[in-house]
Amino acid sequence: MRWSQLYVPTLREDPADADAVSHRLLVRGGFIRQLMAGHYSLLPLAVRVRAKIVDVIREEMSRIGAQEFILPTMHPADIWHRSGRWDVMGEEMFRLKDRKGADIALGMTHEEIFTTVADELRSYRDLPQVWYQFQTKFRDEPRPKSGLIRVREFTMKDSYSFDADEAGLDRSFDLHHEAYQRIFARLRVPAIPVQASSGTMGGSASVEFMCPTEAGEDLVVHCPSCGYAANVEKATSRLAAVEDGPGLPAPERFDTPDVRTIEDLVRRHDVAADRQIKTLVYVVDDRLTLVLVRGDHNLVEQKLIDFTGATAVRPARPEEIKEALGASPGSLGAVGVKDLPVIADEALRGRRDMTTGANTDGVHVRGVDVERDIAVERWADLREVTADEPCPTCGTPLQVVRTVEVGHIFKLGRKYTETLGVSVLGQEGERVVPIMGSYGIGVERAMAAVVETHHDESGIIWPVSVAPFEVAVVALSTKDEAVVKAAEELYEQLRRERVDVVLDDRNERPGVKFRDIELVGIPFRITVGARGLAEGTVEVTVRATGQTVSVPVGEAAEHLRKLLVAAGEE
Amino acid sequence: MRWSQLYVPTLREDPADADAVSHRLLVRGGFIRQLMAGHYSLLPLAVRVRAKIVDVIREEMSRIGAQEFILPTMHPADIWHRSGRWDVMGEEMFRLKDRKGADIALGMTHEEIFTTVADELRSYRDLPQVWYQFQTKFRDEPRPKSGLIRVREFTMKDSYSFDADEAGLDRSFDLHHEAYQRIFARLRVPAIPVQASSGTMGGSASVEFMCPTEAGEDLVVHCPSCGYAANVEKATSRLAAVEDGPGLPAPERFDTPDVRTIEDLVRRHDVAADRQIKTLVYVVDDRLTLVLVRGDHNLVEQKLIDFTGATAVRPARPEEIKEALGASPGSLGAVGVKDLPVIADEALRGRRDMTTGANTDGVHVRGVDVERDIAVERWADLREVTADEPCPTCGTPLQVVRTVEVGHIFKLGRKYTETLGVSVLGQEGERVVPIMGSYGIGVERAMAAVVETHHDESGIIWPVSVAPFEVAVVALSTKDEAVVKAAEELYEQLRRERVDVVLDDRNERPGVKFRDIELVGIPFRITVGARGLAEGTVEVTVRATGQTVSVPVGEAAEHLRKLLVAAGEE
Repeated sequence: MRWSQLYVPTLREDPADADAVSHRLLVRGGFIRQLMAGHYSLLPLAVRVRAKIVDVIREEMSRIGAQEFILPTMHPADIWHRSGRWDVMGEEMFRLKDRKGADIALGMTHEEIFTTVADELRSYRDLPQVWYQFQTKFRDEPRPKSGLIRVREFTMKDSYSFDADEAGLDRSFDLHHEAYQRIFARLRVPAIPVQASSGTMGGSASVEFMCPTEAGEDLVVHCPSCGYAANVEKATSRLAAVEDGPGLPAPERFDTPDVRTIEDLVRRHDVAADRQIKTLVYVVDDRLTLVLVRGDHNLVEQKLIDFTGATAVRPARPEEIKEALGASPGSLGAVGVKDLPVIADEALRGRRDMTTGANTDGVHVRGVDVERDIAVERWADLREVTADEPCPTCGTPLQVVRTVEVGHIFKLGRKYTETLGVSVLGQEGERVVPIMGSYGIGVERAMAAVVETHHDESGIIWPVSVAPFEVAVVALSTKDEAVVKAAEELYEQLRRERVDVVLDDRNERPGVKFRDIELVGIPFRITVGARGLAEGTVEVTVRATGQTVSVPVGEAAEHLRKLLVAAGEE
Repeated sequence: MRWSQLYVPTLREDPADADAVSHRLLVRGGFIRQLMAGHYSLLPLAVRVRAKIVDVIREEMSRIGAQEFILPTMHPADIWHRSGRWDVMGEEMFRLKDRKGADIALGMTHEEIFTTVADELRSYRDLPQVWYQFQTKFRDEPRPKSGLIRVREFTMKDSYSFDADEAGLDRSFDLHHEAYQRIFARLRVPAIPVQASSGTMGGSASVEFMCPTEAGEDLVVHCPSCGYAANVEKATSRLAAVEDGPGLPAPERFDTPDVRTIEDLVRRHDVAADRQIKTLVYVVDDRLTLVLVRGDHNLVEQKLIDFTGATAVRPARPEEIKEALGASPGSLGAVGVKDLPVIADEALRGRRDMTTGANTDGVHVRGVDVERDIAVERWADLREVTADEPCPTCGTPLQVVRTVEVGHIFKLGRKYTETLGVSVLGQEGERVVPIMGSYGIGVERAMAAVVETHHDESGIIWPVSVAPFEVAVVALSTKDEAVVKAAEELYEQLRRERVDVVLDDRNERPGVKFRDIELVGIPFRITVGARGLAEGTVEVTVRATGQTVSVPVGEAAEHLRKLLVAAGEE
């Protein structure tokens, strides 16, 4: 390809609205343009990168025996009703009516639709099946942001496995786990596989592949020693026990007109935060529920959702709280509460001599023995793990890193095959309901993740596997015929050798060309100049290191071949 | 690929609802399944064919210097309002609101969106640009039908050219014309380029590529002698002149209580149809308009739309007609009508002694001299050409063939660049508004067109260029080790030679395998059997001809290579 015939609208300045590095560099490098919030046009360089990412994923999916489909993006509402997710998906699902008034969903995921295709499977002998597609997904994100990282329309590689039994699902799941590790390794995305919540997917287990980056919105708890890793929505730690005194024979009220927060009680009444009970009031599937965590802990709402299996969880409104408990937040407590369910975090189990609100504004109670004084209905792990708590596996202080999810694999179970009535004939003639897994990678987000983890102040540094071009050939002069000719010949030679090469034949100053090539992140540059040519050499520059070496013209292609091979093996 | 690991749910029976051949065979062959009317899932074989079609198109687009983009499918309403097409597109455009209540269109075409991207072009030196994408298009067809031929969701290769002047547009248009001819030649779709209406696209010229098939809904008028070809929406003919007598000095009323139709007047009053004026009443952009054609001619509504430039054209309702003309259809006429615009077909120009309705029920007038007695405001070509009329170019009797559109190229002019405010700096520093072309190929419809034109009673006969596999290797026995081994070796050898081969390793009877391979349309089959092997031979069968030859095992691959080369050159 010749740069003069390539549309690459690079920008001198950072776009004003770009928060994430990848957003900034992909816009400046002429890869993407925003059409509206959450919707991006991919320009030619981005299309090239995307195609290489797709190829890597396709190869690895093919390697585990997966077969490629393409399913519609528009789905009849009926199928989503049958699976129960028409309501669950809420505002995140785009919906419309067609000219006949029929309800249509735009696919945000394809469990339902692949399951209907699987309805044609007849026998256990047809299993396992692993089916995948590259298809546009639509999600009405409340806050699209960070360029390609959080958008409303994107390409997803989504795959679905159908197995006869749990052992089969385990195998399909493991195959995907391995495929995803190979994919991210080839994309050079340093993804950490972590235990995760299954969210609206349902199912028994899920692993997220998380790429550390400041642009991420997910916190991952990670052990630098044993490798334990989990999304903060799921992470646990080996929390140090708190020694309690014997406490009081019964809870004792005391006035706290000056207390609104945990911190107030610490400062004004000398009650350590880890000796307090934080009482939160939630509406869990329409039922007011008290949720208790230790004063110095934070609730993870997703843990509450996962534990209760609720489809809708929200904090109660002040007036709902007042009506139920007779007090305002700041003086709430669960002591003596009988008519509301109470869910307490495990860290409160066995604790004595605790302090909590008295359900009278301006009054608290002390000497609370949690198990004696509070009618805890259920105990659960609900709290957020924070940095430096001991690893649940090995005790090493945990790290908390900011990440973006680049892949997610789920063991779904039989939720979809059961609700949509899919079964096959088993070995003994019995009906067997296939057990499913579901597995996703966001293609454009993967592109952004590569940029987040491969850049410097001059621009992007694409790994060779997904670079828009592997090599740029630059003629330092467009007038010096010998220089132009040598550059053209080198370009043609590399093309013949199937190197993905661009010839920067623009009538621009070398500085402009170098800056653009660095900004768009082409891994290797060959510079052809009059001075070098006089000595029979050209310069080869490595984008990642900035190192430049002189190489005899005749050996440039071979030199490059070695660099490309080495880059592939890195 | 091994067939045992391929999901190909072939059916014994034709699907009940399939009207078109391609629909029937693609469903039976396990290529596609319907999700809902107008929305199909592509199964693995169809994905393979689609990928090959995409590759052919991509190569030919690249050859004319086009650059690949991917633009969003969701568009803000605003841009469609600015181009004026938010209203024009009517019910065919899917629309929805996002969670914030903003209006969104699902892209049915991308003129507007590519034009906004072109807003960044700065100088005439940046022109021409030819940009394309493969992207899902959404169209709320009133009657989705014929499998992949008329759907609501499909992949389109759409490209857009931006040129500085008309000469540039002509060149971009011609390049596309040539590219499309190469594409359809490679896909083996016998597409006829025909003059066509530009419809809602606007613009000065358009050519459709029409594939003859019974499943088509478009009529193409075609000259077998000189090659003249036009969509019936646009076609003309060299109509024989009708000799008129001197007529009457003034129109004369006569009673026709027994007349409702042209035919009634022929039979009961002996007035030849070509001596009658058919008076149609249309609402053209809210204005009641009389449209006149000869009694034996039919109006082409699209010609009326194109001629008037109207955005909405519909037949008037009986009550609207009654109110305006005082009569019902059957006795309508334009003689003496002064307050309504009258548009007449060219075939009525100069005609005398004609008969038409008198705008009184049960009364007609004869002796009408069209130019003398009717206030014709505008003359236009409005009538439908029928078979055997003389070719407008060479006079040979025309043929009318049923076709499906597989490609359409438009000269758009400056409609979109002007309404969306796109301009570049010209050579003299002036503002230049780029002139556009737009060009489309429906990918899945192209797949259907191949099947429509390449099949027999046993199934599909894919051309090698787009076949899901080029070759199937069949072992006649799955138990005879020598046979299995020879088949496996042949399969591996062909794979090494980069032949796209499938090994039918299913534990099925040979008859089942042969029937499936014929149904799904694999061009070549190699059959390995014990009897042949004993003599050192295998059989090679050509799907298109059914011919089978015995070939020494060691020469099978080379024999096949020659067949593939020959197929490519055909």
